[in-house]
Amino acid sequence: MSLAFNISPLFDPTLAAQLQRKIDGKTKPPGALGRLERLALQVGLIQQTLEPALRQPVMLVFAGDHGVTTAGVSPFPQEVTRQMVLNFLAGGAGINVFARQSGMAVRVIDAGVNADFGVLENLIAAKIAHGTRNFLEESAMTREQCEAAIAKGADIARREIARGSNVLGFGEMGIGNTSSAAILTSKLCGVPLEQCVGRGAGLSDAGLEKKRALLAAAIARHPDVHAPLDVLATFGGFEIAMMAGAMLAAAERRAVLLIDGFITTSALLVAACLYPAIKDYCIFAHESGEPGHAKQLAWLGASPLLSLEMRLGEGTGAALVYPLAQAAVNFLNEMASFESAGVSGAAA
Amino acid sequence: MSLAFNISPLFDPTLAAQLQRKIDGKTKPPGALGRLERLALQVGLIQQTLEPALRQPVMLVFAGDHGVTTAGVSPFPQEVTRQMVLNFLAGGAGINVFARQSGMAVRVIDAGVNADFGVLENLIAAKIAHGTRNFLEESAMTREQCEAAIAKGADIARREIARGSNVLGFGEMGIGNTSSAAILTSKLCGVPLEQCVGRGAGLSDAGLEKKRALLAAAIARHPDVHAPLDVLATFGGFEIAMMAGAMLAAAERRAVLLIDGFITTSALLVAACLYPAIKDYCIFAHESGEPGHAKQLAWLGASPLLSLEMRLGEGTGAALVYPLAQAAVNFLNEMASFESAGVSGAAA
Repeated sequence: MSLAFNISPLFDPTLAAQLQRKIDGKTKPPGALGRLERLALQVGLIQQTLEPALRQPVMLVFAGDHGVTTAGVSPFPQEVTRQMVLNFLAGGAGINVFARQSGMAVRVIDAGVNADFGVLENLIAAKIAHGTRNFLEESAMTREQCEAAIAKGADIARREIARGSNVLGFGEMGIGNTSSAAILTSKLCGVPLEQCVGRGAGLSDAGLEKKRALLAAAIARHPDVHAPLDVLATFGGFEIAMMAGAMLAAAERRAVLLIDGFITTSALLVAACLYPAIKDYCIFAHESGEPGHAKQLAWLGASPLLSLEMRLGEGTGAALVYPLAQAAVNFLNEMASFESAGVSGAAA
Repeated sequence: MSLAFNISPLFDPTLAAQLQRKIDGKTKPPGALGRLERLALQVGLIQQTLEPALRQPVMLVFAGDHGVTTAGVSPFPQEVTRQMVLNFLAGGAGINVFARQSGMAVRVIDAGVNADFGVLENLIAAKIAHGTRNFLEESAMTREQCEAAIAKGADIARREIARGSNVLGFGEMGIGNTSSAAILTSKLCGVPLEQCVGRGAGLSDAGLEKKRALLAAAIARHPDVHAPLDVLATFGGFEIAMMAGAMLAAAERRAVLLIDGFITTSALLVAACLYPAIKDYCIFAHESGEPGHAKQLAWLGASPLLSLEMRLGEGTGAALVYPLAQAAVNFLNEMASFESAGVSGAAA
């Protein structure tokens, strides 16, 4: 089990210039496709080609439970994680609807749900434990569990890529996991905790106050935790750790990464602390309605493509952004050039 | 030829409450799909059903030439309008690529291109004249031409709806038409002209200054023009007038209207001055990089769904937003409810 990844920054001035020339030759005023042009350039650089293609897109949905839910940080009971996993497998959740529309396969991963599913077709069994421990009392996971989750996530991503996928979306489910994400964001981005804590699945004002106080106490309970993997092990979730591992392996294999919202980006924070070049491989799907997400994006220097006030998780934002990634690749491959279409250019 | 339209505001509190209950019953925290939830509600109200469906989406691309181009308001020569019409018909333009991806049919309409196409398969021949006249000297079109364009546009939309479409996208092509759109915006929204004038297809600083001065002179040349149809006839384009007519007829038949960028929205301004209820039928696709578009959107009270710094026109933004409209309808129809999926709700 190795946690070393070889992730290359996207630096190829020659190819970048060739891609830009191809983009500028299309029948449109220079720059008129705005952010889609930069997206086309990025995907070309990731795939190291003038003719990129998105193949067999897969949405990985990692599920895990959180010990801290016993303290009452979510309006939903913990059993909803299990119920939603079954909803994913039955095809009835938001991510199923949007992934189906976008032509993405959905893989559901039991990273650490507090339930026994038995053998279920289509569920990837990767359980590290029956939920994390309560970080108000002790570390959410051991360092060994954390590393095991990362390694399993990496395996899962590598398997999809070996099967032919070159674009992976990342999503999650886990009652209580905005609490983990809030602390990860505060610790890793150096943002005051209160700016990272939101209503999650819909806390009341009183619930939000309680969540803030509990999470502040949790941080105080573990004063000497600073290194990214220690922060992840102490405050994270199995689904977050496993996502981080999957992201790192996907970037190593030069896949395109579709990054969803607040929880998914908290996994990316850990990955980007370890391997900053991973950011080059990411398409940031949307800005979540959960307020801490903007802090994460600012720290990453990222501008998401969509802003729809969504805060569902599951990878729903990443599934909705896929058509824009496809559009970027399609215009690069399919649009006529001034030359091929016999269209006059602009006056010099 | 009648220019009267019967457009009903979307007011049905009973259906709205039923739709909201259906939305809130889906397996997600209340409101977690953000703007998609409001979109689902809107489409349900437009179609007057709890089970809306988008059928046979069509992108109407109206092309016309502008007499003012002789004064040098665009870096591209007028002949590019004709060349781009041929590019549309050959399937090589941006709108072809994005509409194909979104599953939308493209109809290209010659509203008033300064060229003779002869009989071309797939080109809808609706030419009012070989381009407008130069509004620096005289009215761009006569009142009769303006009304004829509106009536033809309405006919075109009605034909698509009669064939089975219930969602129409609007796009355009016309070298020089940001000049028309800028004046329409200034006159109809009461915004100072200089805030409505942009670089269009890519003017230099000097070109932008010249365009501003020319358009200010044009407004001064026609001091007594204020009524929406007079503004349209004096400063508009045939493609803009025909779009306005198509929009009005589409809203009358309760279609969903996908509104593109700066030029398309200038047509909607005219339509909305005449029939404000048309706004209820519109999905505003994106905020264009052309600065006047934000002024139009503010006047309309509209918040577009995408913001990708695009400024290509043709309907490209409207084609890219279609998957989001589809996603709104799909989650409403396909997502499981808490009840059907056996998922526990939030604590009260």
